[in-house]
Amino acid sequence: MAHEFKMQRRVEFCETDTAGIVHFSNFFRYMESAEHAFFRSLGLQVHPHSESGIWGWARVDTACTFKSPLRNEELLDVHLIVREKRNKSFTYDVVFTKQEGGASVEVARGSMTTVCIKKRAGEEALQATAIPEDVGALIEAAPPEMLAELLASAGRG
Amino acid sequence: MAHEFKMQRRVEFCETDTAGIVHFSNFFRYMESAEHAFFRSLGLQVHPHSESGIWGWARVDTACTFKSPLRNEELLDVHLIVREKRNKSFTYDVVFTKQEGGASVEVARGSMTTVCIKKRAGEEALQATAIPEDVGALIEAAPPEMLAELLASAGRG
Amino acid sequence: MAHEFKMQRRVEFCETDTAGIVHFSNFFRYMESAEHAFFRSLGLQVHPHSESGIWGWARVDTACTFKSPLRNEELLDVHLIVREKRNKSFTYDVVFTKQEGGASVEVARGSMTTVCIKKRAGEEALQATAIPEDVGALIEAAPPEMLAELLASAGRG
Amino acid sequence: MAHEFKMQRRVEFCETDTAGIVHFSNFFRYMESAEHAFFRSLGLQVHPHSESGIWGWARVDTACTFKSPLRNEELLDVHLIVREKRNKSFTYDVVFTKQEGGASVEVARGSMTTVCIKKRAGEEALQATAIPEDVGALIEAAPPEMLAELLASAGRG
Repeated sequence: MAHEFKMQRRVEFCETDTAGIVHFSNFFRYMESAEHAFFRSLGLQVHPHSESGIWGWARVDTACTFKSPLRNEELLDVHLIVREKRNKSFTYDVVFTKQEGGASVEVARGSMTTVCIKKRAGEEALQATAIPEDVGALIEAAPPEMLAELLASAGRG
Repeated sequence: MAHEFKMQRRVEFCETDTAGIVHFSNFFRYMESAEHAFFRSLGLQVHPHSESGIWGWARVDTACTFKSPLRNEELLDVHLIVREKRNKSFTYDVVFTKQEGGASVEVARGSMTTVCIKKRAGEEALQATAIPEDVGALIEAAPPEMLAELLASAGRG
Repeated sequence: MAHEFKMQRRVEFCETDTAGIVHFSNFFRYMESAEHAFFRSLGLQVHPHSESGIWGWARVDTACTFKSPLRNEELLDVHLIVREKRNKSFTYDVVFTKQEGGASVEVARGSMTTVCIKKRAGEEALQATAIPEDVGALIEAAPPEMLAELLASAGRG
Repeated sequence: MAHEFKMQRRVEFCETDTAGIVHFSNFFRYMESAEHAFFRSLGLQVHPHSESGIWGWARVDTACTFKSPLRNEELLDVHLIVREKRNKSFTYDVVFTKQEGGASVEVARGSMTTVCIKKRAGEEALQATAIPEDVGALIEAAPPEMLAELLASAGRG
């Protein structure tokens, strides 16, 4: 069972704004992409199709605190941790860091709750549904010590 | 029958980049939005649904030349002209201008060909199809003199 | 003194995703754009320049809860309320609604804290600074009753 | 001297639209990112600073033809070729392909002309300038045979 995922990405020019830093809205895209890469790393599809419909994950709640500017072409380390696993949803914490002057600097820290949804064949409406078994069998919440440490580090960034 | 459409939009901060100007990729979004606003102005839906499927418009070819920088919060005038109307597609010219020092300055000039597509109910594939009658009855190519003048002004921007 | 601002915007096609709804990251762009439109409505510049440098507003904290899907071409009502005014920052609540079947439906609800920053002439670093007097003279926190009502409505969306 | 560059990227969910395919504006972002990765692969900086100012590359002309839909999570092969090198600018061709059913399928094909610009210290205006020597020493136009083959393949996609 997996409870965390790490990836690295390089800031692209189109993600920056006139202030010379990554536009804050992009951190939410980075969080979602990390979740999808986490799923792929476990051999899971993000949007599996079956005869009965299409599954997906809808974001119902998200937040982010910005601590240090991130600039064009910098390498960003993304660390996604499963904080909570419920019947129909996962809540993740995501810590963004970069290397600067030999040290790891916290750039931002976010959280995201995604609920499993299903769009039944032939319908437009999206309905919240229980996490599919194959997904639930591979992903679990991180151990309490890890979450406690994460919380303790939040103020230090 | 309509052959042109004018709209104005204000540059949003998230559309700019580290160079302090609108990221060039956004001009393609502006072109598409102008086409959709043109359709709405004629009472047409961009993606009508029927029992047999969903219609849409796919971009098959587009280009843009950038002439003058556009910055955060500036007002952009978008002028869309129908250059050509074919059985399954429209080709538009789009001229972007702004007011500066009492004069109209050409910011960019683009073109876009969109082909009418249909996604039949229950299928994933998208197929090129003839322009629906209600659309064809409302939109026509601009008169030759207007297109000639447009071409003549291209080098002056 | 102003403590709220309302605007309307139409969803653009490029803001939607494969799920057929507005990508959640765009709500953060909508919040920022509403803040900037609020400033403009008061005759304030978002990024004033002076000989000593450039002022700006950096987002330090933001969150959003998503309640109802928003689709291509729908009209979105954005209501920005000043929840808190501090020495160097503002915190806003933003309520997103749309009209559906004759009723107002809450689409999403977010918050955003922006801190005033200054980039001194010739320097790259951004520093938090006190809200300029002309801005502080025009914007105030909303009255307690309004904030209480806003809080009470949060669960009803 | 280098005249081409290849990279692979995976489509991210936020890059798709309601039609279930990558929004066409993103191909222009992919082109720019490929150019920047090409520069990095040669040890070049995209936006070098010196005491006299900042260099950069402004897109003056770009186009793209779309041939086959690209969907969420698909792997995209990006092949950038230097078609022309002039005193102040480069023109690139970019061929986008993906693997499908064991074959390489052309997704799109674009071109982009970027002109070298300089923003002198203390000034806002951007001026076209000669390609810096270190850049010119490392990048050259592709051989005529390669460009001829590229042209010949355009219709086959």
